[in-house]
Amino acid sequence: MSTKISNVKARLFEVPLPEVLSDAKHGDHYHFELVTVTVTLEDGSEGTGYTYTGGKGGRAIKAMVDYDFADALKGQDGADIDSIYDFLEWHIHYVGRGGIASFAISAVDIALWDIHCKKLGQPLWKVAGGHGNTCKAYCGGIDLMFPLEKLLGNMKSYMDRGFNAVKIKIGRENLDEDIERIKAVREFIGPDVTFMVDANYSMSVDKAIEAIERFKECDITWFEEPIIPDNYKGYAEIVEKTGFPLAMGENLHTIHEFEYAFEQSKLSFIQPDASNCGGVTGWLKAAKLADKNNIPVCSHGMQELHVSLVSSQPNSGWLEVHSFPIDEYTKRPLVVENYRAVAPDTPGVGVEFDWDKLVEFEK
Amino acid sequence: MSTKISNVKARLFEVPLPEVLSDAKHGDHYHFELVTVTVTLEDGSEGTGYTYTGGKGGRAIKAMVDYDFADALKGQDGADIDSIYDFLEWHIHYVGRGGIASFAISAVDIALWDIHCKKLGQPLWKVAGGHGNTCKAYCGGIDLMFPLEKLLGNMKSYMDRGFNAVKIKIGRENLDEDIERIKAVREFIGPDVTFMVDANYSMSVDKAIEAIERFKECDITWFEEPIIPDNYKGYAEIVEKTGFPLAMGENLHTIHEFEYAFEQSKLSFIQPDASNCGGVTGWLKAAKLADKNNIPVCSHGMQELHVSLVSSQPNSGWLEVHSFPIDEYTKRPLVVENYRAVAPDTPGVGVEFDWDKLVEFEK
Repeated sequence: MSTKISNVKARLFEVPLPEVLSDAKHGDHYHFELVTVTVTLEDGSEGTGYTYTGGKGGRAIKAMVDYDFADALKGQDGADIDSIYDFLEWHIHYVGRGGIASFAISAVDIALWDIHCKKLGQPLWKVAGGHGNTCKAYCGGIDLMFPLEKLLGNMKSYMDRGFNAVKIKIGRENLDEDIERIKAVREFIGPDVTFMVDANYSMSVDKAIEAIERFKECDITWFEEPIIPDNYKGYAEIVEKTGFPLAMGENLHTIHEFEYAFEQSKLSFIQPDASNCGGVTGWLKAAKLADKNNIPVCSHGMQELHVSLVSSQPNSGWLEVHSFPIDEYTKRPLVVENYRAVAPDTPGVGVEFDWDKLVEFEK
Repeated sequence: MSTKISNVKARLFEVPLPEVLSDAKHGDHYHFELVTVTVTLEDGSEGTGYTYTGGKGGRAIKAMVDYDFADALKGQDGADIDSIYDFLEWHIHYVGRGGIASFAISAVDIALWDIHCKKLGQPLWKVAGGHGNTCKAYCGGIDLMFPLEKLLGNMKSYMDRGFNAVKIKIGRENLDEDIERIKAVREFIGPDVTFMVDANYSMSVDKAIEAIERFKECDITWFEEPIIPDNYKGYAEIVEKTGFPLAMGENLHTIHEFEYAFEQSKLSFIQPDASNCGGVTGWLKAAKLADKNNIPVCSHGMQELHVSLVSSQPNSGWLEVHSFPIDEYTKRPLVVENYRAVAPDTPGVGVEFDWDKLVEFEK
């Protein structure tokens, strides 16, 4: 039976969040968008991939899959993932190289990996690298505007859920407030819990350096996106002046952007997101480049998928357990044991959506 | 009366081309997509902007305007173009920074400039810089697969239309064929006609250098996009090894990408496209950066608008007269006098669509 693609079906869901979540640059989040893409081959095999957004762009992603990808993919060999990846990159190159196209390509690519792993009868963590099936994990809040008491309550809930690593948002107008929150969290969680901060690129180089000077005594594992992702050399300048470990990656969409970051930014951690850097294929390219540069590969968002990817790599870093609870709309919400996230052992990418739960949010 | 935005209306047209046009990386073009955006203010003033694609991405662009921009723009001050530009950049930052978002922002921005110039009662060339109202212009073919005779016939038609500058596509599998075509065109047009070539980033650095060695005797004014736009340093390597003038810009979508190009690529010409680098606002940012770097600013595509922008700048370069004849669907197709393109003098951006001609192609 042929492995030619016979159907490509995209669906869009607007999933409400239990409460309004805010960060320094994206403002308030009321819901997240989930775009699923189900690919069917002529032999009847089927896989589902997906991408997500903070609430904008979902319609454009679905439109690209529906109008620019679906017909163009039909008849192509769904088993040849690399060729399809290259094909899609060139197919929408003029309107692509990042942005919406990266999200759309990612969803298709993950669907093809789902089929690939199912055909092999193996879980993603084995097929993607096989180095391990568990990884370090931390909870990342979108909590910039939470009052202090609520912020600390969040920390408690993370630890109650079995985590020993946390991240908070910073980047308030008044740096004093950031510092106060950082100190309060460190005091609350104690010295043994790993702690990161994330400014969502809201600072200037100078403000970031000042912030570091003021929070460096708080044992912060990394400072994430202090400045805009486009300012690769600005990251290096911060590192040169402070020696502080920096992280970024959720806004890098092409392998070229990862190359610039590795060459120019002196990062200590990289955080590619398979939902926006080309799916499993794109994420693994970034992970391998990170390994060559001796940088641990972490992740951003969609923990239910990244747990397999981060676990699988020799340079495995930290899995972010993101505040968009996509995993709660799957048949296997993220599993945590002994403070580590555990990759699913089911054949495929290990993310089976609970469509009954999602259907009411379909657009 | 208030200048608050009261309505944002996008329309998509798939306009067939008179014949199939091919280049080295985008393949065959059967039609182009035109996305128009009409913005209305509470005081009743109205402006229309637009963007275009080679046939893919139009639905996604329209979806972004319809679902992510239209409601968010209502109530904002349509007279404050810079603030709206910044707002849109951050509004869709997570799915933006290039790609579809750049096209969507461009169309909105041009509409706001149309309103702005109409309110001033002045044409775009005056408001955008006022340095002049005519500029050098060349015809750019999408003619890679045209047989030689047809290619030369194209050159004749350019000259018959009043141009003395031409550009052809190169980048065939076999470099010998490129060289043969370049030599034939130079012989046909004679020594006095300006002549450029464009490989649509189909070559490696080494192949581009070899090509230059073989065509440098043909008096080529620039070699456009020899390699992928992402390889900024590769451009510089070609220049260092050959001393040959290079051009690019149609694939640079953010001001940061232009910064990288100016810093790293040793370009002789820059070709921003207001339809995909942030409209008039984005184009002017790129033009000013070019001026600071002593580089003439040229353009890509939509000659009916760029004629005003290229003419208006102190570092005015060459206007591309592109093979997508958008201007033929406006009330004033491009005017050429004494080998120079002439900017319209009507208040506004000077691009008034002939909707009766377009309506049959609406999607």
